[in-house]
Amino acid sequence: MKYPKALEKLIESFQIYPGIGPKTAERLAFFTFLKMKDEDVISFSKNLLRLKNELKYCSECGVLTDEDKCEICSDSSRERRLIIVEGTKDVNVFEKTGQFFGRYHVLNGLISPLNGVGPEDINLQSLLKRVENEKIEEIIVATSATIEGEMTALYIKNLLENRSIKVSRIGYGLPAGGDIEYADEITLIKALEGRKEM
Amino acid sequence: MKYPKALEKLIESFQIYPGIGPKTAERLAFFTFLKMKDEDVISFSKNLLRLKNELKYCSECGVLTDEDKCEICSDSSRERRLIIVEGTKDVNVFEKTGQFFGRYHVLNGLISPLNGVGPEDINLQSLLKRVENEKIEEIIVATSATIEGEMTALYIKNLLENRSIKVSRIGYGLPAGGDIEYADEITLIKALEGRKEM
Repeated sequence: MKYPKALEKLIESFQIYPGIGPKTAERLAFFTFLKMKDEDVISFSKNLLRLKNELKYCSECGVLTDEDKCEICSDSSRERRLIIVEGTKDVNVFEKTGQFFGRYHVLNGLISPLNGVGPEDINLQSLLKRVENEKIEEIIVATSATIEGEMTALYIKNLLENRSIKVSRIGYGLPAGGDIEYADEITLIKALEGRKEM
Repeated sequence: MKYPKALEKLIESFQIYPGIGPKTAERLAFFTFLKMKDEDVISFSKNLLRLKNELKYCSECGVLTDEDKCEICSDSSRERRLIIVEGTKDVNVFEKTGQFFGRYHVLNGLISPLNGVGPEDINLQSLLKRVENEKIEEIIVATSATIEGEMTALYIKNLLENRSIKVSRIGYGLPAGGDIEYADEITLIKALEGRKEM
């Protein structure tokens, strides 16, 4: 015996996600039917569609946003300093520290030859243009302390080499092999303070 | 900074599920946007609605089904023996053993005074009627080996006391405190063989 088709189908959908195996998917699907309010299931269903329809990348910095230009890029009072990060989550983490008042540039990926990701596959094309247009005075590269993160940082350093711009790499506090996304706020403040010129 | 509303909303939906905290919900929502195919998101959305619309309890045995009467209850060749279980998942587990050819009765709950669940709150009303109508010859109570499971088994034993029907409780092989849902097939076969008259 298999489960009724409507149940099997939902179990299948949950299983698409990494880290959700057959048992967990089953548990989630049963919970959806047995415990969730009808209106919560309906809004969950709507929210899935809404995400794909409304969400896009900021035309300036590449962060995920529901406008053409994100809130930070639209804020002209932001300092002419730029933190370069891998993804949207990282922007959120830096904003939470409340200690940085500059702008961001979101790569939406890291250079990774093993996975076939080259410099042209991440959001780097617009970086030089932004640096000029926005008269950026300082760049802080805040990619994760992994091989891909280091490689990407090095590439950016070379890219900006012949310009009179201070380029540093976030340093102090970030444990080796660590992921920016999971760092706490204190560690990130220390890492900002302890940055070293590249 | 918060995330765009479409993203926040989906994170909220994921967080309704038990065992999904803010970090996991964030990870799942990002995966939905960044890695999932459009058609998979659309069918996930549909499957959620479909579940609430199509799924119901079998009018005979109480199992979750998309028909009025489930496949097993509609199969007249099934033996006149009945396994009483807590939920739909348990039926699936017994069917997978391939060693039981009788019918099921799904309680959709267990008696639990501490949680305010009495005998009238679970699918017991139709049991006596079924036993007579279907000329059931043997009943095997296969509730979990927990306090609620034992209490429910005892209640069913008393309910059927003055009838000439063999009532047994699944026994051999089920570890104390264990949940039926997670038992392996061999353990369940042993448990069926080792049942004791109540």
